[in-house]
Amino acid sequence: MAEKLRLGIAGLGTVGTGVVRIVQRHAALIAERTGRAVEITAVSARTRDKERGVRLNAYAWEDDPTALALRPDVDVFVELMGGSDGPAKAATEAAIAAGKDVVTANKAMLALHGQQLAETAEKNGAVIRFEAAVAGGIPVVKALTEGLAANEMARVMGVMNGTCNFILTEMQNTGRSYDEVFREAAELGYLEADPTLDVGGIDAGHKLALLSAIAFGTQVDFGAVELEGIEKITIEDIEQAADMGYRIKLLGVAQMTGRGLEQRMSPCLVPATSPLGQLEAATNMVVLEGDSVGQIVLRGAGAGEGPTASAVMADVVDLARGIRVPTFGRPAQGLTKPTPARSSVPAPYYMRIELQDKPGALARIATVLGDAGISIDRMRQYGHVDPTAPVLIVTHKTSRSALNDAIAAMPATGVLASDPVAIRIEEV
Amino acid sequence: MAEKLRLGIAGLGTVGTGVVRIVQRHAALIAERTGRAVEITAVSARTRDKERGVRLNAYAWEDDPTALALRPDVDVFVELMGGSDGPAKAATEAAIAAGKDVVTANKAMLALHGQQLAETAEKNGAVIRFEAAVAGGIPVVKALTEGLAANEMARVMGVMNGTCNFILTEMQNTGRSYDEVFREAAELGYLEADPTLDVGGIDAGHKLALLSAIAFGTQVDFGAVELEGIEKITIEDIEQAADMGYRIKLLGVAQMTGRGLEQRMSPCLVPATSPLGQLEAATNMVVLEGDSVGQIVLRGAGAGEGPTASAVMADVVDLARGIRVPTFGRPAQGLTKPTPARSSVPAPYYMRIELQDKPGALARIATVLGDAGISIDRMRQYGHVDPTAPVLIVTHKTSRSALNDAIAAMPATGVLASDPVAIRIEEV
Repeated sequence: MAEKLRLGIAGLGTVGTGVVRIVQRHAALIAERTGRAVEITAVSARTRDKERGVRLNAYAWEDDPTALALRPDVDVFVELMGGSDGPAKAATEAAIAAGKDVVTANKAMLALHGQQLAETAEKNGAVIRFEAAVAGGIPVVKALTEGLAANEMARVMGVMNGTCNFILTEMQNTGRSYDEVFREAAELGYLEADPTLDVGGIDAGHKLALLSAIAFGTQVDFGAVELEGIEKITIEDIEQAADMGYRIKLLGVAQMTGRGLEQRMSPCLVPATSPLGQLEAATNMVVLEGDSVGQIVLRGAGAGEGPTASAVMADVVDLARGIRVPTFGRPAQGLTKPTPARSSVPAPYYMRIELQDKPGALARIATVLGDAGISIDRMRQYGHVDPTAPVLIVTHKTSRSALNDAIAAMPATGVLASDPVAIRIEEV
Repeated sequence: MAEKLRLGIAGLGTVGTGVVRIVQRHAALIAERTGRAVEITAVSARTRDKERGVRLNAYAWEDDPTALALRPDVDVFVELMGGSDGPAKAATEAAIAAGKDVVTANKAMLALHGQQLAETAEKNGAVIRFEAAVAGGIPVVKALTEGLAANEMARVMGVMNGTCNFILTEMQNTGRSYDEVFREAAELGYLEADPTLDVGGIDAGHKLALLSAIAFGTQVDFGAVELEGIEKITIEDIEQAADMGYRIKLLGVAQMTGRGLEQRMSPCLVPATSPLGQLEAATNMVVLEGDSVGQIVLRGAGAGEGPTASAVMADVVDLARGIRVPTFGRPAQGLTKPTPARSSVPAPYYMRIELQDKPGALARIATVLGDAGISIDRMRQYGHVDPTAPVLIVTHKTSRSALNDAIAAMPATGVLASDPVAIRIEEV
């Protein structure tokens, strides 16, 4: 049997203790599968004296994660602290500078600093692996980087924030308002300390940016992800969408277009009968489309101790087996700087517009759309509630910029009762 | 850049020419991703002079696949001929005896000779990779062997024969008979030369046996797979199942039980709203359940040129990157000989029984079930068609052996009009 692989784990929250549990419970299984013993030698966390439900006394303790990363008895630095900067980044940089491989679940750090970290790792003969950073237990980084490596990727899509999907499916299934279900999600502990990370689409946007880089061979460019959260989705939109055979999902879409790399994380209508439309509760789903393979759909738990720790340990097992794929699937120096293309792929849109109940109001809105070159597929007024008349419109395919022009021109008609809602209908 | 990796491809049917196309089209992409050039140096097939729609003149030709495998300018032998024995096995054995890695799509060969081939490969420092042998383009071998490698697997399930799923969903959607849809599948070219391989569950059984070996660390044991085909499924069963909220699928299930390894490939009722129940047409789906990760579902094209060639090339890319995982995910010598457990996991069953229209007929059947210790959850007679009265029964959980006992005792009641139908209801 080859030399043992020694882990230093920084961060002992839900995921960190989950990793400790797997290493302890499955030591024999992992040794059989990798041909090596995998052991934890040292751990680090903000608080030492805290009951975590796992035995830690066999491991050395370090208060400082950077000191942990640099210990001579640590071969792989397992970063599970989180936070895009600060101690997580400092310790990761120290590890790779010392030529040590890093396994991390930190989507924010990689979404913001992935290119720099990957280049530094490469210079020092180290790799950074991050299966746990995207879609929890689903082995999607591996599927994309390795399983579909002979494909030119056409599109990557995903529902990658379980909390948002929980909120949207709860609204759908119970008819309750966004605010009410949001409060329930908070009570269930589903929300990040800053809930904007979840409902604003930021967390899911980080994940999309990482998948984009692998899929298209581009430098991670989180700044170019068009972000729109689910905060403005009303139960009315969900019910109207359902009436038309759709579900509303916080959907990430990345695709390479003639004009550049398009990355969007935003509420979309998807067919209720599609795998994405059928996705309930906090489950995640990623859809990978390649030129040879067609469409591959992966589904599983996107968060939680077991699933996320499983993904961390998959990376550890890879390293124990000697599998060391470059951070984003090809040498970091070879990743190209993407040209961001903002919503250049045309799509039909769902619109909900509250009109003042005036004669000719509808005609004025239709004219504004027509002037912007947008043709209407379906339109209906539903339930006059004086003094406003809500109107539903489904457009034919249009560009987002034409739609934005139309929306910008609408207030001047003097017939709007509130801001129009526009949600993309995505072909999935 | 490292030395180039040279492929010898034996078999130029749909998949073989698909692999040639990918290597030619994506030479640059693959080199970027692997850091090496991947080239074809020689090919072999039964007929040389045949228009295949790909340029082959740059490659050496061998009539004999074994000669191809042994060429000094071939590093990896890509076996795409098929057939469990004969030239495919001979050439594979020659390649591994010479220490060369093998990539194959040949599920039959591995299901029947996998253990022996894996041991020989190991002795000679070679690996056999077979992503394309299971579920076409879905990277399920990789997901199970690597992505979930830190999990103790609880259960592996799958719909892995697209032809059977096409037939069953066509019956469901159009109300046509098995025979009628079978003929359509034949006309569409969906059936193997020997259709029993498809509709008898053999092909899917081969795939299940391979996944079992990886999941449970056991020697491939195709002989222990309980096989039941879809030939006896009637439109009546499909419609009755649908009425109760189920779909009928040819479902493979492998799980380690207290009594040993249970492997079944048989028609099952699954909830219509589950991912498996919603699977339409020729698509494949594999469900992997591990102790940490929970349930992971993978979905994609299970056959066809592009998807299967994508999987073959994923293995080639792995080898080009230096990723060389043992054939079944751990050393072949360490794989244990499984104890087969035949349908030991209890389940509810759907039964359809045609009774002669005699007084007391139903009571006699109920008595037989009761005598075998089987309790009835739901029972109904539907549509008296003289002279027989069809009865539907859903049992509570029971063992297959108790059910078999009951079915064996039924003819003696003298009230049967035809053989009873019994289909397992699987919790998925």
